[in-house]
Amino acid sequence: MNAKLSLAAVSLALMAAPALANPSALTARPNIILLFADDMGWADISVQGAKTPTAHLDRLAATGQRWTNFYVSSPVCSPSRGGLMTGRLETRTGLYGTQTPVLLEKDPDGFPADELTIADSLRQNGYHTIMYGKWHLGNHAQDFPTRHGFDEWFGIPISNDCYSTQVDLFDGLTSSDPQIFKNTLAIVEKSNSQPRQAYWNVPLYHSYQYKGKQVDYLVPQGFQQSSFTQVVTEKAVNYIGEHKNRPFFMYMAYPQTHVPLFGSPEFKGKGHNRYGDIMLEIDWSVGQIYQALEKNHLAENTIVMFTSDNGPWLMYDKYGISGSALPLRDGKSTAWEGGLRVPFIINWPGKIKPAVVEDIGSTLDLLPTLMRLTGSTHAQQTLDGFDLSAAFLQRQPSPRTFMPYFYKGEMEAWREGDYKLVFTQYEGGQPVRLKQPLLFNLRIDSGEQHNVAAQEPERYQRLITSAQDYLLSLGEKRAPLFDI
Amino acid sequence: MNAKLSLAAVSLALMAAPALANPSALTARPNIILLFADDMGWADISVQGAKTPTAHLDRLAATGQRWTNFYVSSPVCSPSRGGLMTGRLETRTGLYGTQTPVLLEKDPDGFPADELTIADSLRQNGYHTIMYGKWHLGNHAQDFPTRHGFDEWFGIPISNDCYSTQVDLFDGLTSSDPQIFKNTLAIVEKSNSQPRQAYWNVPLYHSYQYKGKQVDYLVPQGFQQSSFTQVVTEKAVNYIGEHKNRPFFMYMAYPQTHVPLFGSPEFKGKGHNRYGDIMLEIDWSVGQIYQALEKNHLAENTIVMFTSDNGPWLMYDKYGISGSALPLRDGKSTAWEGGLRVPFIINWPGKIKPAVVEDIGSTLDLLPTLMRLTGSTHAQQTLDGFDLSAAFLQRQPSPRTFMPYFYKGEMEAWREGDYKLVFTQYEGGQPVRLKQPLLFNLRIDSGEQHNVAAQEPERYQRLITSAQDYLLSLGEKRAPLFDI
Repeated sequence: MNAKLSLAAVSLALMAAPALANPSALTARPNIILLFADDMGWADISVQGAKTPTAHLDRLAATGQRWTNFYVSSPVCSPSRGGLMTGRLETRTGLYGTQTPVLLEKDPDGFPADELTIADSLRQNGYHTIMYGKWHLGNHAQDFPTRHGFDEWFGIPISNDCYSTQVDLFDGLTSSDPQIFKNTLAIVEKSNSQPRQAYWNVPLYHSYQYKGKQVDYLVPQGFQQSSFTQVVTEKAVNYIGEHKNRPFFMYMAYPQTHVPLFGSPEFKGKGHNRYGDIMLEIDWSVGQIYQALEKNHLAENTIVMFTSDNGPWLMYDKYGISGSALPLRDGKSTAWEGGLRVPFIINWPGKIKPAVVEDIGSTLDLLPTLMRLTGSTHAQQTLDGFDLSAAFLQRQPSPRTFMPYFYKGEMEAWREGDYKLVFTQYEGGQPVRLKQPLLFNLRIDSGEQHNVAAQEPERYQRLITSAQDYLLSLGEKRAPLFDI
Repeated sequence: MNAKLSLAAVSLALMAAPALANPSALTARPNIILLFADDMGWADISVQGAKTPTAHLDRLAATGQRWTNFYVSSPVCSPSRGGLMTGRLETRTGLYGTQTPVLLEKDPDGFPADELTIADSLRQNGYHTIMYGKWHLGNHAQDFPTRHGFDEWFGIPISNDCYSTQVDLFDGLTSSDPQIFKNTLAIVEKSNSQPRQAYWNVPLYHSYQYKGKQVDYLVPQGFQQSSFTQVVTEKAVNYIGEHKNRPFFMYMAYPQTHVPLFGSPEFKGKGHNRYGDIMLEIDWSVGQIYQALEKNHLAENTIVMFTSDNGPWLMYDKYGISGSALPLRDGKSTAWEGGLRVPFIINWPGKIKPAVVEDIGSTLDLLPTLMRLTGSTHAQQTLDGFDLSAAFLQRQPSPRTFMPYFYKGEMEAWREGDYKLVFTQYEGGQPVRLKQPLLFNLRIDSGEQHNVAAQEPERYQRLITSAQDYLLSLGEKRAPLFDI
């Protein structure tokens, strides 16, 4: 498992996905529901330690597979979502920034015209494709989900804490005056920790085809933060009832576990803290959606997945409005385990054998896996994901034996088997390259507290070499799209 | 003047614009400011009878030319603005509807990719082109002013009474249930007559280039109805101060004389009614802009024009929130004089000789005229406008001796010299073709009360024939873009 990963091995791994034992089981194309939470940590479902019970998610996990070593491709929103949608690392797609890690409101750039999404290829294969919620891969029409594989989208182009009426984040961050920069961040933090609906005016789009032409309708009622989870849940439930007879792909990207934390009054005070209230509502929504599948006799033919875009935003922990990744180290915006390792549940009654899986998996793998499971073809051949279908269906070992941790266009850490090399520390939130990388044994030290580089010099050198080889194998980076 | 207008004569008129006596006077390209009011009637400036004094507009008129027989190309917003921007009739551009007369929020269509605007050609000639306010030629990015000749736009894509939070106009108007249709209109009327900011959520865009790429920023503060005139006035004043050294074209499309009538508190109760309050604020804005020109020593080199998109919306007269076209007959959405004849003022100190001009002119003529006055070239050769430059500069007779009155894709009336043929009546707001057209002598009967068809049979026949010939000369109609 920790054998030197040569360039050849990487290429091989990318191409030679294990064949399915019984592809005929898949002739009826299953529906796919991808539930995607925002800034939700590894420990924010109760089966992984959350103080607020998430009964519906726990049930989904108990009757499906729960992967405990599952990674996103970047510890922040936009690049992570880019990796999910394309199955490709940020340095291939350009969906990253070296200075500005995510897309801001006034950024003219967005999802590249030449990249393909999961939805593109599922639609090509006859799926109806719908997205609810947060995109964060571009604020302009050409970037919208409906231009990148989705038949319909009801949601917001960016995070729920953008389009502030209190401060211009873009102007603040691009200001040459350090005081303005600092003041901007202070207002942002204050708004997020003492939120009011009027502090933000995030555009809410309903994007769809009308008589064969594209409509991007700005919903006049606007993005109502507190009720949004309920609104999209109701829409998703109705959608399921109306789409019994054609395979569908639903991408439900819940925005509301991201600060500012807004939720329905019904859940207020029911969680262990404000964050728990919101998780409780997300969990309720998952339950509603699953119930709709059962009611419409679609559960058996629907793959339901649940995961998150990155770890908890711990700078808000002091206000009780952050998720948790404990015992993993740190959270969002870092390459520590808390930044990229997230909950992952996949459920497909009768097809996916219930298990807790400790193998490595990634959101990068979902694209090739879903292509396989649905018999779809994806024109983009250079992928960074592995086909996990045999692992899901036959409990074969995961073909993914390594994980690169990218952030701001750099590989800041590298996992191979149980071991992780860390190349970067953080000073004032900014990544600083270490002269001597650190080595952790994640199996016994998921908190990344004990550097074992000195104890395991041979392994240390081997991992450094294979990480270098891997980086080399990626070729040249595409220019970053998010820098402003 | 009333000679039979043959096809040949029409073609000739379109091509043979009178040459300027002294083109060298125009070597320094003048700035152009086009001030454009919404639903403002012929009689809404005090020099044409308004009860609320419009001192700044009156001064602009007194020191420039005021044309009293000046027409828009259609009696409703979108097609009229289409005619203004392109110098072409709606049936050539497709910017009309046979059922839905204007663009609605959810309409996927908008300004055609193959049409050129005044701004396109002025920009081509080195002008910086800026637009403030209401576009109403498309709600989607590809339709925006910044895709059709404007370097920058700060404004709303549609009317200030769209994007209702109270009722879905599009769904109501497309409903097959007549009761829903009726209820929709009732809610619209109630909202407009008892307005509150929260009843509408019109998107406010700031659209511009950033590092060579297009940004369409949705301003989080939203479209604040009451302060909008002040906001754009301040921006326009600042713009003038910052653009002294490059010719500019400013298109200021004031939205706020359209229901719901919102204005600044300073002007409340100062006009003769609510509509007068708003006109007073528009007049103030015109004064501010003119003052900025003087302050920056640009007045001598700036052509300032003021006109409106169509006549008053008289269904709101009972609430005191409509403009007036009196003594002209009727208003918006009709081909009576009150629908299409609007105030027109042009001011260019030292260049345009002050006068009150009774010749016929049209917003269709502004494109060819501005091309001539600025030495610009316009690639679209098939225009419906005449070059009025010699009329403006040398007080030569207007080359426009006729006017077609288009509405919903039909020519509903035809003026030739002093006489007007009317082909259509209105029943419940809907145009109904007359079996026998009416004939009016506008010189003595601008209220269109006395049909003189029987008294002047020869002229009557002549006009019918020339109207038919004219229609024939237009060729095939382009399909309507606004029907839903």
